Amino acid sequence: MTDAGPARDALHRVVIVGGGFGGLYAARELGRDRRIDLTLVDRRNFHLFQPLLYQVATGALSPGEIAQPLRSILRRQARTSVILGEATGLDVARREVLLSDGGPIPYDSLVVSTGARHAYFGHDAWAPFAPGLKTVEDAIEIRRRILIAFEAAEREADPAVREAWMTFAIVGAGPTGVELAGAIGEIAHDTLRRDFRSIHPEDARIVLVELADRILATFPEGLARKAVRSLERLGVAVRTSTTVVGIDEAGVAARVGDREERIPTRTVLWAAGVQATSFGRELAKAAGVEADRAGRITVADDLTLPDHPEIFVVGDLAVMRWKGGREVPGVAQGAIQSGRQAARNIRARLDGRATEPFRYKDKGNLATIGRGKAIADLGRFRRFSGFPAWVLWLGVHILYLIGFANRLVVLVRWAWSFVTHGRSTRLITGTPLLPEIREPEPPA
Amino acid sequence: MTDAGPARDALHRVVIVGGGFGGLYAARELGRDRRIDLTLVDRRNFHLFQPLLYQVATGALSPGEIAQPLRSILRRQARTSVILGEATGLDVARREVLLSDGGPIPYDSLVVSTGARHAYFGHDAWAPFAPGLKTVEDAIEIRRRILIAFEAAEREADPAVREAWMTFAIVGAGPTGVELAGAIGEIAHDTLRRDFRSIHPEDARIVLVELADRILATFPEGLARKAVRSLERLGVAVRTSTTVVGIDEAGVAARVGDREERIPTRTVLWAAGVQATSFGRELAKAAGVEADRAGRITVADDLTLPDHPEIFVVGDLAVMRWKGGREVPGVAQGAIQSGRQAARNIRARLDGRATEPFRYKDKGNLATIGRGKAIADLGRFRRFSGFPAWVLWLGVHILYLIGFANRLVVLVRWAWSFVTHGRSTRLITGTPLLPEIREPEPPA
Repeated sequence: MTDAGPARDALHRVVIVGGGFGGLYAARELGRDRRIDLTLVDRRNFHLFQPLLYQVATGALSPGEIAQPLRSILRRQARTSVILGEATGLDVARREVLLSDGGPIPYDSLVVSTGARHAYFGHDAWAPFAPGLKTVEDAIEIRRRILIAFEAAEREADPAVREAWMTFAIVGAGPTGVELAGAIGEIAHDTLRRDFRSIHPEDARIVLVELADRILATFPEGLARKAVRSLERLGVAVRTSTTVVGIDEAGVAARVGDREERIPTRTVLWAAGVQATSFGRELAKAAGVEADRAGRITVADDLTLPDHPEIFVVGDLAVMRWKGGREVPGVAQGAIQSGRQAARNIRARLDGRATEPFRYKDKGNLATIGRGKAIADLGRFRRFSGFPAWVLWLGVHILYLIGFANRLVVLVRWAWSFVTHGRSTRLITGTPLLPEIREPEPPA
Repeated sequence: MTDAGPARDALHRVVIVGGGFGGLYAARELGRDRRIDLTLVDRRNFHLFQPLLYQVATGALSPGEIAQPLRSILRRQARTSVILGEATGLDVARREVLLSDGGPIPYDSLVVSTGARHAYFGHDAWAPFAPGLKTVEDAIEIRRRILIAFEAAEREADPAVREAWMTFAIVGAGPTGVELAGAIGEIAHDTLRRDFRSIHPEDARIVLVELADRILATFPEGLARKAVRSLERLGVAVRTSTTVVGIDEAGVAARVGDREERIPTRTVLWAAGVQATSFGRELAKAAGVEADRAGRITVADDLTLPDHPEIFVVGDLAVMRWKGGREVPGVAQGAIQSGRQAARNIRARLDGRATEPFRYKDKGNLATIGRGKAIADLGRFRRFSGFPAWVLWLGVHILYLIGFANRLVVLVRWAWSFVTHGRSTRLITGTPLLPEIREPEPPA
């Protein structure tokens, strides 16, 4: 911790709020600069590799295998401090980040990368019946619900109730919804095939509900069609142009055209929408900028706020424009690249250079659909699907996963699952376990 | 699931309550017998490898790495059903196991292996301040408390409060207490060494409190002395002949001879005592036998209950005698061997043979103390310590760990931790995270 550079209080103070992809890659870029004193604030003590969170939710990986402590990632950066704390607001005049507990943190430059969480578009009453997938706790809760459903079906005598336990509805057919539906299909057809004595897990009904007229809006239509076929082979019923109008303990009410339909199910998963975290709204208020309906903030070309060149917003929280005015998609690469660009712009200013506009480089788009199947869109002439796309998906995810031990462990898990069709982390944890089987009561 | 054997309802019905070591090894032995229809009931859907639970509590392994779904372990046994349910009582006259939800399960033979949980010897008020280590949820809670303590110390300005956060007290110096203390010592001295900016984790004070006049009562004295030296090298203060008289949010009150002493600490872990699970008491009541103070049940030589030759009790729940009238220790081997013997006795009866008495075969006693150090007691002339004992410990634990993927993953984790001194699953999970940092208030 001794350092030959200037004293820490003579340094340029940068505060990063949020240790997701945007914040972490900004921190790595800034940590190298000896003129900068860096503080990273996050509510969690770890960086989570969100693209694999659905694998935790479906029992293929453990939370610890896709997460790494922020302190340990940044330990070699002597001028970097990590604070476990909740940023609740901003004093733009004094240039301070306010915390829910403990003193404010002063900054010269600020990078905000607090991301998004799932949202129910004004239907918060649906939340208890349809958990979303953003945190480790969400993933463990979804895993619990999926596994408990099969357990409850095994013990249920009433055929209608049993069928409701054996039905899984996923709302929203973006990459997360598709990957969840595919993984549940695999669990039913492969993983649990020989595990039960009263039920046949392969009888499970998996319904993927999507408002738009097709799934995977961010992928080309040809690949989306291939994904539909792969999903159907896993027993997933894909329902496009379908509006969810109600979710309760008895199931999902949906509207297709003029027709209303009920899907009786005990397990509904929400993969339909996101909105910016609450710190985004505090930032908008404090900096006097407008947030869009989802709470996101439009940034200038160089990722700063108008009137506040010292504040950068990156990742999912920012509305960033790409070539032709298209929005940069809310994927890991968007956050990684914008985080890095914000860091480079801070360093450019310290050099006396001008900031540069953020240019998103599309590295392609990948999604898996069950075991050994994926779709890859690497540009107009490089679209493919099936096993080669899946191998590419594997490689990219191992490459970006942080921590060498995690990479090796995840590789072992995947190789083993591929050979055995297994998912070994199918633990039902959290309390209470059993009341959930009895409740909810069958609808009257 | 088709089976050329006799119809299931003509089979001898065996019910096993509890899927720990005793129940699981009994189930494996019985599953091979085509005359037996087997039902295993457990409150959890997985078998937990308890000897490595302290590694989850100290961030070296993930829960999913030391647990395996019971259904998946027993899937190849066509005449075996697994029921996720809570056994609450017994009707010995009708020969039925009662469940908290759902119908009773009839049996011809019953194996009870519900084990033990930690106990506070009448001081239940200590429970919120000193969690024990028996379940996955316990381990995650202990992991959270240890990690939060360092985070809170990093942010604390008051030196006294900071010191209380940096102090860890472990009550009970059996194998679990010793392994926990050693692992925390390692975290402080090795794992977190470069992670913080305001505190020096190696200043952590770790106090191991033991009522008896030496630690590790089940080990020979020479090895226990070696363990003390290893612990002291990791910064653990070993306090024997010390009685805990109080535990609250401000710390531990202990009595040494006539002197009373306070250890101000925010983190107390309980490794001092166990008692039988509540199903044990129900069993004793229903079968008209006496339970000892810890709720355990004395069994006949062949592991059956007096007057109830159809009921077997194995593992930690049973008081089993060994050569010279010594009690079989409450370790994995005791449960494994007694579970197997109960199963063999059930099969012997079906063969028309007499049951055989249980003969515990002592395979030795192992405990680790931090990285690369252990003690091994394999009999009078085979006692050793240090690195060779640790390698033996590794081998034995990998061998008994269930699930090939888990074995490989755990090997990778250990190899990597050994090389890097790291512990990569240091996640603080569960909600709420931050209020814990503010509470408890410093004592007035």
